Amino acid sequence: MKKFVNDPKQFVPEMLEGLALANPDTLRYVPEYNLIMRSDSPNENKVSIVQGSGSGHEPAHVMAVGKGMLDAACPGDVFAAPPFDYVFETTKLLASPKGVLLLVNNYTGDKMVFDMAQEMAAAEGVNVKTLFIDDDVSVQDSTYTIGRRGVAGNFFVIKAVAAAAERGADLDEVIRVGEKVNSVTRTMGVALTACTPPAKGSPLFELGEDEIEVGVGIHGEPGRRRAKMMPANDIVDEILEPVVNDLPFKDGDRVALMVNGLGGTPISELYLLYGQAHKQLAAKGITVGRSYVGEYCTSLDMAGASITLVRLDDEIESLLNDPAEIAMRVF
Amino acid sequence: MKKFVNDPKQFVPEMLEGLALANPDTLRYVPEYNLIMRSDSPNENKVSIVQGSGSGHEPAHVMAVGKGMLDAACPGDVFAAPPFDYVFETTKLLASPKGVLLLVNNYTGDKMVFDMAQEMAAAEGVNVKTLFIDDDVSVQDSTYTIGRRGVAGNFFVIKAVAAAAERGADLDEVIRVGEKVNSVTRTMGVALTACTPPAKGSPLFELGEDEIEVGVGIHGEPGRRRAKMMPANDIVDEILEPVVNDLPFKDGDRVALMVNGLGGTPISELYLLYGQAHKQLAAKGITVGRSYVGEYCTSLDMAGASITLVRLDDEIESLLNDPAEIAMRVF
Repeated sequence: MKKFVNDPKQFVPEMLEGLALANPDTLRYVPEYNLIMRSDSPNENKVSIVQGSGSGHEPAHVMAVGKGMLDAACPGDVFAAPPFDYVFETTKLLASPKGVLLLVNNYTGDKMVFDMAQEMAAAEGVNVKTLFIDDDVSVQDSTYTIGRRGVAGNFFVIKAVAAAAERGADLDEVIRVGEKVNSVTRTMGVALTACTPPAKGSPLFELGEDEIEVGVGIHGEPGRRRAKMMPANDIVDEILEPVVNDLPFKDGDRVALMVNGLGGTPISELYLLYGQAHKQLAAKGITVGRSYVGEYCTSLDMAGASITLVRLDDEIESLLNDPAEIAMRVF
Repeated sequence: MKKFVNDPKQFVPEMLEGLALANPDTLRYVPEYNLIMRSDSPNENKVSIVQGSGSGHEPAHVMAVGKGMLDAACPGDVFAAPPFDYVFETTKLLASPKGVLLLVNNYTGDKMVFDMAQEMAAAEGVNVKTLFIDDDVSVQDSTYTIGRRGVAGNFFVIKAVAAAAERGADLDEVIRVGEKVNSVTRTMGVALTACTPPAKGSPLFELGEDEIEVGVGIHGEPGRRRAKMMPANDIVDEILEPVVNDLPFKDGDRVALMVNGLGGTPISELYLLYGQAHKQLAAKGITVGRSYVGEYCTSLDMAGASITLVRLDDEIESLLNDPAEIAMRVF
């Protein structure tokens, strides 16, 4: 295994410590609960937005904590749901009179933990609700999921609900916004290589030298089919068509288009994919109103990419356009 | 080869086309010269800042074009200097009455092309000068270089000279700023794997399963030594010490610390490296005033990282703090 790791058991805590050291004015690391939170949260005038999930998807979600985005992220170990008591304590720590929204990608392990934490926190008087994200069109059920998986489209849900919360929306209104964005967001990914979890030290699944996994999940779950390696434009067609056809996105639609890298793919290749996706959408009469190219939700060091479309309307576009400040800064 | 590529010969143009499609309001792609420029450049009230280099280092430099950063980038093919006539035409196209600064990382091939383009453009009346960046402390001369190589530290030179230019500085003043930042910027990198150029289709050099290249160049050039794989903290010590000792950085210094990914390394690992580097600097009495963690100057899909330090003073910190808007946007 060729990774920057010390003790694999300390991989996540050491990453979080580095993240907090790099952002001393804005982020706080709470080692007891493996928690990253905004230094100025909870804010009694806004709903607290919290996302939890396994680690290994960075920048999701610990690097999406900041003004206009998450108030806190509660990560588990690599590809593992966070422990129940961490989520429970995080929920109480972030409790605001306006409420707490727990955002969760739809995986059975996470769902169980967050549902339980929500119930227990509510029993202690915290105004808390949960919203599940399930944007992956690849498969209906999956290795760790009943129903669709939640993948890179979670970025748009986070951004929109966080913007609504910053504007002062109440918990029900924030949930309405999140459900609305989730309902018009669709994603599909493709793996060129498997990923290697630090604690395993070897690839999570086998993929032949000339094979790709079309519709892969962000934990290496199987997709729709194992295909032979093909030119980039054909790969775009393989994953864009199912995304377009699912909602479906139609002639006249205005969309946000995200090309998300899965961890091991250079941004040069992502822009090449973006160009083809943009042109294919234009040919269908679908206008790209907002573009996102880079890494938003990864699968460790997996070479691969996903394409996400969000159908925009004035409300969603306005929320996506609100300012935000997170650790993924350029300057 | 597992890459998102169509025809390797079209890799760079297709990437640039995607970049322009994703940024229709701010960027213009000029296929004749393989050029990415700001839509609103040249601006007659400011010095135009242009960087050229081989491709394969993205986001450097085509994705660093935008307000407060580059006016244009003139890339060659992967790991190849741009053709002379492209640089010459780019220089004329970006000519402003206040002048043009050509920023070049110190590689012999690039130096030759840019020196020639500068001479020819000057002969046609363009007020143009050239500034070479050489922040890599690993080796004195290298495969493609007489003198030190220019690597990820170029980000800081670009940011500072661009900020000075936006403020209205004249060409001599912009050059003074660039030389000053270059003189206090030091970098060293490490490769865990080789990179694979699309046109070659196989790794550029051999690195054993248990080996790393300490001091690698961003084109896979040899560094100081081939070492056995080691824990992340030890790797940080291997590359941070030479950086600190070179300037040298001293007790009481305030620095910018960049942990730059070389293309195939997840950001989770970069933050882990950051934490160790930050703590090692603190132990030496060196304060990190600004943090940069992510991909700034890559080597295609190479797994690896580099560490850059910049000694800050009020002037440099103020310039780094100026606003900028480039394609690497989060929102």
